[in-house]
Amino acid sequence: MSDEVIQQTPLWTGDHYNEGIGRDDIFDKLREECGVFGIFNIPDASNLSYYALHALQHRGEESTGICTVDTTDHNKFHYHRGLGLVKEVFDKEKLEVLQGDRAIGHVRYPSSGEEDAAGNAQPLIFRYRDGDLAVAANGSIINAPEIREELERSGSIFQTTSDTEVIAHLIARSTEDFETAAKQALQKLNGGFAVLLMTNDKLIAATDQHGLRPLVMGKIGDGYVLSSETCAFETIGAEYVRDIEPGELLVLEADGFREEQFAPSARRAMCAMEYIYFARPDSDISGINVHSARKRMGRELAIESFVDADIVTGVPDSSISAAIGYAEETGIPYELGLIKNKYTGRTFIQPSQSLREKGVKMKLSAVRKVVEGKRVVMIDDSIVRGTTSLRIVNLLREAGATEVHVRITSPPFKNPCFYGIDTPDRKDLIASRLSIEEIRKEINADSLEFLTHKGYIEAVGGNDGAFNRGMCMACFDNDYPTPVKDHLNKSS
Amino acid sequence: MSDEVIQQTPLWTGDHYNEGIGRDDIFDKLREECGVFGIFNIPDASNLSYYALHALQHRGEESTGICTVDTTDHNKFHYHRGLGLVKEVFDKEKLEVLQGDRAIGHVRYPSSGEEDAAGNAQPLIFRYRDGDLAVAANGSIINAPEIREELERSGSIFQTTSDTEVIAHLIARSTEDFETAAKQALQKLNGGFAVLLMTNDKLIAATDQHGLRPLVMGKIGDGYVLSSETCAFETIGAEYVRDIEPGELLVLEADGFREEQFAPSARRAMCAMEYIYFARPDSDISGINVHSARKRMGRELAIESFVDADIVTGVPDSSISAAIGYAEETGIPYELGLIKNKYTGRTFIQPSQSLREKGVKMKLSAVRKVVEGKRVVMIDDSIVRGTTSLRIVNLLREAGATEVHVRITSPPFKNPCFYGIDTPDRKDLIASRLSIEEIRKEINADSLEFLTHKGYIEAVGGNDGAFNRGMCMACFDNDYPTPVKDHLNKSS
Amino acid sequence: MSDEVIQQTPLWTGDHYNEGIGRDDIFDKLREECGVFGIFNIPDASNLSYYALHALQHRGEESTGICTVDTTDHNKFHYHRGLGLVKEVFDKEKLEVLQGDRAIGHVRYPSSGEEDAAGNAQPLIFRYRDGDLAVAANGSIINAPEIREELERSGSIFQTTSDTEVIAHLIARSTEDFETAAKQALQKLNGGFAVLLMTNDKLIAATDQHGLRPLVMGKIGDGYVLSSETCAFETIGAEYVRDIEPGELLVLEADGFREEQFAPSARRAMCAMEYIYFARPDSDISGINVHSARKRMGRELAIESFVDADIVTGVPDSSISAAIGYAEETGIPYELGLIKNKYTGRTFIQPSQSLREKGVKMKLSAVRKVVEGKRVVMIDDSIVRGTTSLRIVNLLREAGATEVHVRITSPPFKNPCFYGIDTPDRKDLIASRLSIEEIRKEINADSLEFLTHKGYIEAVGGNDGAFNRGMCMACFDNDYPTPVKDHLNKSS
Amino acid sequence: MSDEVIQQTPLWTGDHYNEGIGRDDIFDKLREECGVFGIFNIPDASNLSYYALHALQHRGEESTGICTVDTTDHNKFHYHRGLGLVKEVFDKEKLEVLQGDRAIGHVRYPSSGEEDAAGNAQPLIFRYRDGDLAVAANGSIINAPEIREELERSGSIFQTTSDTEVIAHLIARSTEDFETAAKQALQKLNGGFAVLLMTNDKLIAATDQHGLRPLVMGKIGDGYVLSSETCAFETIGAEYVRDIEPGELLVLEADGFREEQFAPSARRAMCAMEYIYFARPDSDISGINVHSARKRMGRELAIESFVDADIVTGVPDSSISAAIGYAEETGIPYELGLIKNKYTGRTFIQPSQSLREKGVKMKLSAVRKVVEGKRVVMIDDSIVRGTTSLRIVNLLREAGATEVHVRITSPPFKNPCFYGIDTPDRKDLIASRLSIEEIRKEINADSLEFLTHKGYIEAVGGNDGAFNRGMCMACFDNDYPTPVKDHLNKSS
Repeated sequence: MSDEVIQQTPLWTGDHYNEGIGRDDIFDKLREECGVFGIFNIPDASNLSYYALHALQHRGEESTGICTVDTTDHNKFHYHRGLGLVKEVFDKEKLEVLQGDRAIGHVRYPSSGEEDAAGNAQPLIFRYRDGDLAVAANGSIINAPEIREELERSGSIFQTTSDTEVIAHLIARSTEDFETAAKQALQKLNGGFAVLLMTNDKLIAATDQHGLRPLVMGKIGDGYVLSSETCAFETIGAEYVRDIEPGELLVLEADGFREEQFAPSARRAMCAMEYIYFARPDSDISGINVHSARKRMGRELAIESFVDADIVTGVPDSSISAAIGYAEETGIPYELGLIKNKYTGRTFIQPSQSLREKGVKMKLSAVRKVVEGKRVVMIDDSIVRGTTSLRIVNLLREAGATEVHVRITSPPFKNPCFYGIDTPDRKDLIASRLSIEEIRKEINADSLEFLTHKGYIEAVGGNDGAFNRGMCMACFDNDYPTPVKDHLNKSS
Repeated sequence: MSDEVIQQTPLWTGDHYNEGIGRDDIFDKLREECGVFGIFNIPDASNLSYYALHALQHRGEESTGICTVDTTDHNKFHYHRGLGLVKEVFDKEKLEVLQGDRAIGHVRYPSSGEEDAAGNAQPLIFRYRDGDLAVAANGSIINAPEIREELERSGSIFQTTSDTEVIAHLIARSTEDFETAAKQALQKLNGGFAVLLMTNDKLIAATDQHGLRPLVMGKIGDGYVLSSETCAFETIGAEYVRDIEPGELLVLEADGFREEQFAPSARRAMCAMEYIYFARPDSDISGINVHSARKRMGRELAIESFVDADIVTGVPDSSISAAIGYAEETGIPYELGLIKNKYTGRTFIQPSQSLREKGVKMKLSAVRKVVEGKRVVMIDDSIVRGTTSLRIVNLLREAGATEVHVRITSPPFKNPCFYGIDTPDRKDLIASRLSIEEIRKEINADSLEFLTHKGYIEAVGGNDGAFNRGMCMACFDNDYPTPVKDHLNKSS
Repeated sequence: MSDEVIQQTPLWTGDHYNEGIGRDDIFDKLREECGVFGIFNIPDASNLSYYALHALQHRGEESTGICTVDTTDHNKFHYHRGLGLVKEVFDKEKLEVLQGDRAIGHVRYPSSGEEDAAGNAQPLIFRYRDGDLAVAANGSIINAPEIREELERSGSIFQTTSDTEVIAHLIARSTEDFETAAKQALQKLNGGFAVLLMTNDKLIAATDQHGLRPLVMGKIGDGYVLSSETCAFETIGAEYVRDIEPGELLVLEADGFREEQFAPSARRAMCAMEYIYFARPDSDISGINVHSARKRMGRELAIESFVDADIVTGVPDSSISAAIGYAEETGIPYELGLIKNKYTGRTFIQPSQSLREKGVKMKLSAVRKVVEGKRVVMIDDSIVRGTTSLRIVNLLREAGATEVHVRITSPPFKNPCFYGIDTPDRKDLIASRLSIEEIRKEINADSLEFLTHKGYIEAVGGNDGAFNRGMCMACFDNDYPTPVKDHLNKSS
Repeated sequence: MSDEVIQQTPLWTGDHYNEGIGRDDIFDKLREECGVFGIFNIPDASNLSYYALHALQHRGEESTGICTVDTTDHNKFHYHRGLGLVKEVFDKEKLEVLQGDRAIGHVRYPSSGEEDAAGNAQPLIFRYRDGDLAVAANGSIINAPEIREELERSGSIFQTTSDTEVIAHLIARSTEDFETAAKQALQKLNGGFAVLLMTNDKLIAATDQHGLRPLVMGKIGDGYVLSSETCAFETIGAEYVRDIEPGELLVLEADGFREEQFAPSARRAMCAMEYIYFARPDSDISGINVHSARKRMGRELAIESFVDADIVTGVPDSSISAAIGYAEETGIPYELGLIKNKYTGRTFIQPSQSLREKGVKMKLSAVRKVVEGKRVVMIDDSIVRGTTSLRIVNLLREAGATEVHVRITSPPFKNPCFYGIDTPDRKDLIASRLSIEEIRKEINADSLEFLTHKGYIEAVGGNDGAFNRGMCMACFDNDYPTPVKDHLNKSS
C-alpha cells in the first residue's frame, strides 16, 4: 500500500543466529518469519515475556512487542512495540508499565519488499465491539489478499500490510461470540501459522490444520505459557507440557483451559527447515531435540557420502552440531576451520567493495593455521542461491585448504515456501535450475553431496520410522500440504 | 481502551510558546489541540511541510507526521510519524524518502488522560476499498464516541483512540464515491474541527459548520497550501489567499480546485482563545493580526481598568504584546519585570520540592533590579485554576515589588471547551466558583481586573462592530454554538 | 594541534539567545566565550550548579561540565562533562553521583576554527603534586601560546588546546603552596578572564587586572556562590553580594573566605559588549541592570538620531529592550515587526539554497500585517559583517515596509577583540572598511545611525558621569587596556 | 584520583567472548586488559583499523579509539575515542574524518574499581615539545605509581588514571630525541605490556622485556600492521610476518622500519592465560594456533583424568574446543549440554533476584533433552572464585544430569596477576585457600580435576619440549618473571 519511513533503521541486523556472511547475501540465507509467546495467569507476565522473547530472538530481529492484560485493573490492556531487538525495545520502565499476569508477545522479521516495518510490529492491537483484541501470529496466510479485498469491499480499513490484520477483521465482522468468531475466522485461512489471540477475558492459541509452524505449551505453577520453541521454557523456568496439535484451538480463561479444534486435524506437516536451520539447537520440536537431530543429520551424511579428508568444519552457527556428528561418525577430527565475529550487528559498517576486494572480511573468516595444507569437509545446512557457499569455499581455499568437500545436511532446496519462510523466486534457487554437479562447479567445491530425503527422515525421526508422515518437505519435494498458487507469499 | 508505553517520553515538553511555569502547572495553562498543514502541486512537498509544521509547532509539541503522494510514481503514499518536535522526528534522510508534490502534515498535543500518544500520531493512514487514505485533523468531535460505538457494532475495528479515526471509517463504510462519502461523513459530525483528507488522487480541506478552528489557504506558483495559521505561509514564502469558510469543502485535484459546501455555513464562531493565547502573534486570523489584536486588548484593558503604577510588565511570551499596548495607552513604562529561560525543554530536570522551597526557579524569574520598590502592573492572558497567577505574583513580591496589579486580557474563563481545547473540569476553573474579588485574594494581588466581553470584541474587531457575530466565546459566556452535553471532550 | 571527531555533533546549535539568522551567518554575530559558576559550602552543590549553569546557558551552548568536592568523603572529586546544552549533558543519575557541597561548573562556546570541542570541555581536571585540581575559566589569555611553548620546552604535555590548561601547568610547576602558585600563575597572564580554581581544600576565584570579564559573588545561608552573571543568583535563590574586583583573588576555605589581590587593580575595563549584547537582560553588571541599560541605549539613540516613522521594531531577542526605549522616547509605537521561531535548535535542518531562494525562512520572519505599508525603525545591537543586517532589512521590505531606518545601539564595531569574544578579522568588520553611508547602502537601509560613544556611556552609566573610566570599548575605539599583538586570539 | 560520571553507561556489557553467567559474576571471570592495533603506510588506515579492532573486540568492550596521521596534510593528527563497542563508537562519518595512512587504535576494559572510564579511553593524545604524541598500550606497569609520584613532584600534571600516561610524561621530560626518549622511558618500566607510540613522523611498537603480552607484526603490500592478535590480520587481509620479541623496539618511519632493542631480552614469559582463555581461538600466539592448543588441552586432560560418562560438554564459548578434544580422545560423544544466548549485551535487563529464584536464566541454559539422565563431563577453562562453576553444575543437575564431572583445562588459579589481567585478591581465589577436594564440594561436582602444569605445557608446546621456557604461569606456580610487590595492580 504505502511505506513508512521508520524511526529506527530497519536494516538487516546481522545478529541472526543463522545469518549469512553479509548484508548483500541476505537473500542467500533463508529468513524465518517470527516467533510468538503467550503467558496466562502468572505474575510478572511482562518480565517473563521479555526473557522468553529474548530466547526466541533468532526467529525475528526486526521488531518486537508485548501486550499485557491487567486482571487487577478491569482487565485493561497495556502494550509496547518497537523496532529493534528485545533488549533494545524494552527497558525497566517500559516493562513496569506493562502490568498484568497475562501477556502475548512477538518477535518479527519483515517479509521481502515490505516497507512498513514499524507499523507492522506485533502484537497488533484493536478495539472492537466487545473490547480490546491483541493478535500475534507467525507464518503466512496464502489467501490473505483475497480475504482482505473482500473485507475492504464491505468497508473495512486496514492499517498494516500484515496478514495478521485480516484475522482481527474477520473476528470483528462476525456476529458470533469471540470464541466462535475466532474459530470461523481460522477456518477461512489457507496457510501455515501459529496464532495467539488475546481479549480482555481470554487467550486463544492455535496452529493451522497441518501444524506447519511449531507452537508448544508449558506450565509454571498454576499458569500456562505458549511459545514457538521450547528454548524459551528453559530460560524462564517453565515446564514443557505438550505441542499444540494441528487445527487445535486452546482456550485459556480465568477458570482454566479448554482444548478445542477449530478444524479437523489434517495431514501433519511440520516445517522440515525448523530442524535443519531455524530452531535454536536447544529447542525440542515434537519431542525431538534440534541439536541432536542435527548431529544425526551429520552422521547420516557421513554414512551416505563419506569422503576422506583431514578435518571436518561446520559453517557457524547452525552447522556446528552436524559437523561434530559427521566427525564422530567418520573419525576425522572436527576443527575450527571457520570463525564468526560475534560482535557484528545492526550498526556495524559493512566494508566497501574496494575493501572487500583487498581482503577485508565481514563476519566469517577461515582459520589459516587450522586449514592450511588440509583436505577440508565443510558442513552447511542448505544452499539457496549458492553465492554464500562459493564465498565460504573460497575463504577456505585462500587460507590454504588443498581440497574442500561440501556436505549439506538437507536435500537440494528447489521450491519456494508459502508458509512463512522468506524464499527467493524459484528461478533464483540454484538447485531448481542446476544439477548437483553443476552446483559443485558453481561453488568451486571438490565434491558436493546433499543429505537424502530418506537420510533426513532417519536423522530427525530417530528410530521411529513413522515420523516422516509428519513433515512438510515441500521445499525439497514439491509436495505442498495445502493448495498453493504460485503467487508471492505474504508474511505476518 | 488501552495504553501503549511509547518509545519516546511523552512528557509535557515545556517548549510551548505559551507554557506555564512548570510541569505541575500543566493544567493551569490551556493546551491547544493540534495544527494541520497541506500542500498540493508544489515540488518538494515534504521539505516545505517540514518548515511549515515547524512554524506551527506551538500548536502541538508531542507528535508530528507528514504523508506525501508521489505523482511521479503511481500516486504512491509515503509517510513518517513520530513522538517529539518536528526537528526531532524528521531528519534529512527521512524527508528525502517522502517524495512527492502533495502532502498533509500534523503537529499534535494529546488530550488529557490519553495514553496512546505514539499510536495517535497523525496523519492517520488507512488502506480502504479505493486505495490509500490519510487524515489529519485538529479540534474535537463531540459525538465521536456514539459514531464509534455504532461502527464497532457493525464490525469496524479501531487502532487509535483518536476522534479522527471515525472520519476514515465513515468514508470507508460509504458506498458512494470518495468526495460524496467525505461530505456525508463530515455532516454527521458535531464539533469544532479543521480536517485534511488525502487520497491517491485528491486532497480535501474542510472546517466544521461554525468555523470554530482556523484554516487558511495560500498559494505558491500554481500550487496551493493549507494551514491552521498564516505564520506558516511567511515561513515558506506562500501568499495568503483566504480563510476556509464554515462548512466549506475545498477539493484539490490534478486539474485545479473546486469550492463546495458539505453543509450550509451556520453561525460563524471562531474560537476567541486563538486571538488571546494560542495563535502565534505574527499570524492573521480572519484577516486580523494576532499581535495587533493583543496590543489592542492591552489598550482596551488600560482604558477599562487603569491603575496608577511605576511599571507595566507582561507574563512571557503570550502577554508581552498586550503589556506594551497597556503601557502605550497609560504612559506607564513597559519593563522586563519577568523573564523566561528559553532553554528549558523536554529533558530538563524539574527542581525537587525541597529545592523549590529554597528558591530555585524553573523557567520564570522576576527581575529584581527592575521591580524592586516598584508598583507593578502585571498583564496576563487568562486565569484558569489560579495557581500560576499566585506564583507569579509572589515572584514579583519576593523580588521587591511593593504592589502587584493583575490585569487579564480576557473575560473570566468559566466554562469548559468542547471544541478542541483541553480544559479542566468546570469545578477546577477558578472563575466559575469565585468572584473576582475572591480570585484577587487567592492570587495575592493588590487589584485584579478582567477585560470585558465588549472590550475584547472591540480589541479584536477593530472598528468593525459586526465582528462579534463571528466569535465563539462560550468559555466566557456559556453560549456554545453547537449542542453540547457535559461529557468529557475528546481530542483529535 | 590535532582534532578529535567528537561524539556529539558540535554544530552551531542555533539556540543562542543572541543568535543570528542562520548557520551560515554564524560569523556575522559575535559569540561570547563561556560562563563560569562556583559554589562553596552549600548542600546539593551539583543540583544548584545545574540550575545556575542553565541560567548561564546563553554564554556557551556547546559543552558544559560540573566538578564537585565531597567534603564528607575525603574531599574527593567527582565530575562530568559533555557536549551539548546543560539539560542534555546532565540527567538525574549523573547529578546524583556528583556528591558534595562545593562545585565549579562551566558552559562553553568553542573559539573559531577549534576542532577538539569534546576534549576542551571544562572544568579541566588534573592530578598534580598536591592532589586534584579543577579549573574553569572564560575569556582569553593573549600570551598563552608563549607560556605554552615555554612549558613544553621543559617537558610539559598538553591534552587540550585551551588557554585554561596553561594555568594548571603554571601552578603544577611552582614549588610554592597552591595559593602562592595560583597568584604567580595569574600574574603571568595577559588577557581578559574570569577563573575558578578548585582543589580538594580550597576554591579560588579571580578576574584579570582590568576586570574585563564579569564575575560576581553571592550568598546562600553560610555558603557562597560565584557566577559570570547575576541572573544565576535569582534562579537558585542566592543573594547578590558584590562584583569581584580587577586583580582580586578570593580564597574560599573551610573556615571562611579571604579577599586578596594577585596584582594591583589596573584601569577598570569591563567589556562594553556585555551590556549591549551578551549578558541576559535580567542580569546586573557592576550594579547596572542590563535590560534597563539597553532601554536607555534605545532612548539615547532616539535623542541622537530621531527619524519620523510609523513603527519601531527590534531584532529579537537582544534588541527588544532598546526598541521599547526608542519607542517610549519618540512616541512611535513599538510593534512586533520581526518574529523568531523559538523551536529552532541543533537538530533543525537548514533549508537548502534553492528553498531559501524560494522564500523559505529559517528562524526570523517579518510580520507582513504589521509592517506592510509602514515606515519602520529597526533597532539592532551591532553590525559585524553586515550580511545579517542586509537580510533583515530585505525581510522587512519584502513584507511591505515602505522605509527601513536602521538604528544601532552601539558605536561602529571596528576592531577585533582579544579578550574572549570571537570576532572576525579586522578586514571582515564592515565598519573598519566602510563609512556609515557606505554601510547604509550595503545593507539597503533608508537611513542608518549608530549610538555615539558618549551616548553609550550615558546609557550604561546612568547619572554617574565617572562610569566610563570602567569600560573596555576597544572594539569601537581601538583603546585596548592591555598590550595586544594582532595575532589570532585564543579562547578558553 | 577522582571519578567522572561518564556519558554512556560503562556497565559490564555482557558481550565478552569469555563472559561469565551474569553481571554479578563479573569478578568470577577474568578480564583481559585491552588490545592494540597499529597500521603504517597503508591507505584507508582508519577503516582497516576499524575492522581490525572489531576483530580484537573480545580484548576490551568498554571503550575504543583510533588516532590517524595524515601524511598528505602536514602529518596532522585526527582522532576519535568513545565508550562502547567498536561498532557503536564509530560510524562512517567519523571514520571519514580520520584521514591518513597511519593509525593506532585500542580496545579497552577498565581495571577493577576504576571510575574514569571515559577519560581513560585510548589512544591517549598529547601535545609536547616536538609535536603530537599518541599512545596505546595494554598490560600493566607495576611501578607506575612511583614514577607518577616522582613526575608530579617535579610539576607534571596528569589527566587520566591510566598507567599509559606515565610513558608520555617520561618521553616529554627527556631532553633526548623521541626515539632515545622512548627507549629510556620503556627501560624504567616494570611490568607486562605491549605499547604503540605514534608521533607526527614515526610509529614505535614494543613489548616488555619478557614479552608478557602478545604483539604481532603483519604486512599489506608495502605497509605494516601491528596487532595484539593475529585474528585481526585475517580480517583485514594482512599477512603475518612475526611476533615482536621481548624488549624489542620496532621503529616505523617513512623510509622503512628498523628493529632495535630498548633492553636486552630477558627470560621469555608469554601469559599462559592467553592460550587458555583470552585469545580468540583463530589467533596464533608464537606460531601456535589457540584453538588447536585448547583442543590439545582437552586431549591431555582426558589422558590425565579420564572419567566414564555419557556425554562431554563445554562451557561456551572458551571451552568448546577443549571439550571436543576431550571427546575425541575418550570417544565419549560431544554434546550441546549448555547454550548461551548470543543476543545478551549492554542494555539487557538482568533478571531480579526473585525472578532468578523462580528459574529465569540469564544467558546460559542447560539443554534438558541433551543432559537428562546423563553422566556429564563438563569442561571449563578455569575456576576463579568458584561461584560460576557452582551455578553451571547446578544448571546441569536441574536439567537432569545424573553426574557432573568437572574438568578444567588449566592448573588451579592461585595467585593474582600483576601484568594486565584483572584478578581478585588472593584470598578470593578459591584455589589459593581450598584443596581440590574442597573445591569439588563447594561447586557441587561429582569429581573435579585440573590439567597439570606439565600437561598444559605439553598441550601448548606440542612436540617442542623447550617451549615451557617461554611461558608466564605465575598465576599457577607463583613464579613471577619480574619483581612484584603485593600491591594493587594498575591497568592501562
